[in-house]
Amino acid sequence: MGNYEVVPEGGITLPRGFKAGGLHCGLKKTERHDLGVILCDVPAASAGVYTTNLFQAAPLLVTREALGEGGVLRAVIVNSGNANACTGEQGEADARTMQAKLAEALGVPADQVAVASTGVIGELLKMDRVVSGIEKLPGRLRDDAQGSEDFCQAILTTDLVKKTSCVKLTVDGQEVTISGASKGSGMIHPNMATMLGFVTTDAKIGAPLLQELLREVTDVTFNMITVDGDTSTNDMLVAMASGLAENEELTRSHPSFAAFADGLRHVCEDLAKAIARDGEGATKLIETRVVGASSDDAARAIAKTVIGSSLVKSAAFGADANWGRIIAAVGRAGVEVNVGTVDIRLGDISVLEQSRPVAFDEAVALEYLKGDTVMIHVDLNMGSGQAIAWGCDLTYDYVRINAAYRT
Amino acid sequence: MGNYEVVPEGGITLPRGFKAGGLHCGLKKTERHDLGVILCDVPAASAGVYTTNLFQAAPLLVTREALGEGGVLRAVIVNSGNANACTGEQGEADARTMQAKLAEALGVPADQVAVASTGVIGELLKMDRVVSGIEKLPGRLRDDAQGSEDFCQAILTTDLVKKTSCVKLTVDGQEVTISGASKGSGMIHPNMATMLGFVTTDAKIGAPLLQELLREVTDVTFNMITVDGDTSTNDMLVAMASGLAENEELTRSHPSFAAFADGLRHVCEDLAKAIARDGEGATKLIETRVVGASSDDAARAIAKTVIGSSLVKSAAFGADANWGRIIAAVGRAGVEVNVGTVDIRLGDISVLEQSRPVAFDEAVALEYLKGDTVMIHVDLNMGSGQAIAWGCDLTYDYVRINAAYRT
Repeated sequence: MGNYEVVPEGGITLPRGFKAGGLHCGLKKTERHDLGVILCDVPAASAGVYTTNLFQAAPLLVTREALGEGGVLRAVIVNSGNANACTGEQGEADARTMQAKLAEALGVPADQVAVASTGVIGELLKMDRVVSGIEKLPGRLRDDAQGSEDFCQAILTTDLVKKTSCVKLTVDGQEVTISGASKGSGMIHPNMATMLGFVTTDAKIGAPLLQELLREVTDVTFNMITVDGDTSTNDMLVAMASGLAENEELTRSHPSFAAFADGLRHVCEDLAKAIARDGEGATKLIETRVVGASSDDAARAIAKTVIGSSLVKSAAFGADANWGRIIAAVGRAGVEVNVGTVDIRLGDISVLEQSRPVAFDEAVALEYLKGDTVMIHVDLNMGSGQAIAWGCDLTYDYVRINAAYRT
Repeated sequence: MGNYEVVPEGGITLPRGFKAGGLHCGLKKTERHDLGVILCDVPAASAGVYTTNLFQAAPLLVTREALGEGGVLRAVIVNSGNANACTGEQGEADARTMQAKLAEALGVPADQVAVASTGVIGELLKMDRVVSGIEKLPGRLRDDAQGSEDFCQAILTTDLVKKTSCVKLTVDGQEVTISGASKGSGMIHPNMATMLGFVTTDAKIGAPLLQELLREVTDVTFNMITVDGDTSTNDMLVAMASGLAENEELTRSHPSFAAFADGLRHVCEDLAKAIARDGEGATKLIETRVVGASSDDAARAIAKTVIGSSLVKSAAFGADANWGRIIAAVGRAGVEVNVGTVDIRLGDISVLEQSRPVAFDEAVALEYLKGDTVMIHVDLNMGSGQAIAWGCDLTYDYVRINAAYRT
């Protein structure tokens, strides 16, 4: 790190050129915001990654098309409370209407507007409410912290907290800011992107390189979290670069490229971890670090299997140092493991060395596991492959929330 | 079906030549049975399938060796309360001691004794208790229903109910019986066999054919259930054929081969479904039938993904007809799906046709989903591939049980 500085309160409107806003249009039953917008004053070099679920929601089709034509966006419109997924031709028409109406309201080209939705699958949007909300959005746009706050509130569903991250760095003597906002709490097992994530920056960078970078960073951040193993139909991560920092355009050979990439990774990792920690019903964040694997891919498979195990997750909720479930998950990850050389630590507490149980103080382990962050370290002692994955515990509240989400 | 007859109360001692028994030796904290035995009066042609988890428990090594030498077993010794997994050389020595001590007590060759264990991972067996229990086992052997009952009780852990199944059929004018007993409630996502399953039959069949058949049947029964997606270190299914029915030896060209295979499948399917229904904390069985897939393998992948989805399982617990979660699971199963042609029914209630929502009566759906068995039908309308998988709902009790299993 060190090449960038964390900005604790920075929102998505902090990079130069961005405004944001949000309001309640009537899709959520309570008076919470459910419609949000990001506007860039200039055409922003933009990139996106999407869910691998075959049933992709209508807004993803529209956003893909918009980004497909040159990677330029001026604005993003997002609604929560309804995913506009599995809604057929009407759903696609509705997503296009959202795009067109926002473009009209803001005076920007429709093919430079991205659309995102999150919420219940299989119900048509109440378009009268959406359209009248869109008409009011221009008046809610702000370039200050309140604009970012309003947007962040507008994209939440079962989330308990808003999720933002921001870093600053210097490129060619210019201050560059990277900010992000995301939402996601259930149906979280991204395979390309998270539920919804939005990154703004004033760095000058071309859309093709931003796309490459976004994919690389997603692979080690959003794609390494799981709440429940369910990959959504609506996952989408969009990044927009205004270029208003007026640095020399970033390329892979630019002296500050690594710093920018690190900063982007920091923002995406913060957002991803915040989603895991705010997983439906979760009381704690679980981080699994796998080292010594035969390859990074093997390490990733193991880290994700451990973090996804319902038994490991339940044990974490119960603060039970049940390492047997961790090694059982390691053994079913589908990759090469030397069964005689595995070390496991919970935080600093060694529980398994060379695949043999180590006596440890149960009271100390209990105290550690009761904390709000649990670190599971797995060393396979085979090679140099490594990976980190994030998840959360499985609790009564996860079941309560999901036994009655729709009704 | 029709080629065999179900015997509702039949136990594993019903086939000619088998005795069984069980007792409490002190591995479980309460006075429940924790040590069980099956004895065949004659050398039984035998077969086994095992977990694919890389960390295989010590008893599996011992049983593999025993079955490797000609496929003949005289007896099986099983303990519950301790899995004897991840216990290193001492664990392997303990499993061999169990084998040797039972052989000595029963007067059978040690290399014809299989060993199975289930319970907590990573703790050494209290061998003094196991050995003194084994010495009492010969006196507990019975060839009646009580012997079967005692054995079934001895193999349970968090299971609430014992699991048995029995069918009869006629082969060459002789009555042939196939019986099975199993256990399993959590860490259930078999990938070769269930937690523990035992099948006895008096059919005359060679060990190699029994092995082939057992694997085929396992693929469509035990391998199609999941409780929590966690594949155990101890899964094992053993089948023993005494041959005392004195039919002509079964071959694939024997006129009764299909009936025998159907009967074996019936027994294994019953046991597998009983495990799913008795999944930790479960209130109901969920059966997912997928038809119209591009291949049986594709159908299997989809059926298992739907049945394994925490969101589908939570919705079933809440009796919520949330088909959006079902189609989201279909879309992330990793196999080819035509996204425009999917039909979904909950029991007889159509909720999706050609991938479009169908209006249905929520009250009727609620009533259906409140039942103790929920059928999810998915028709992809692509080809002739089909599969059935079984699972259970995800409940508060699953979390409660697993938050504090070890302590």
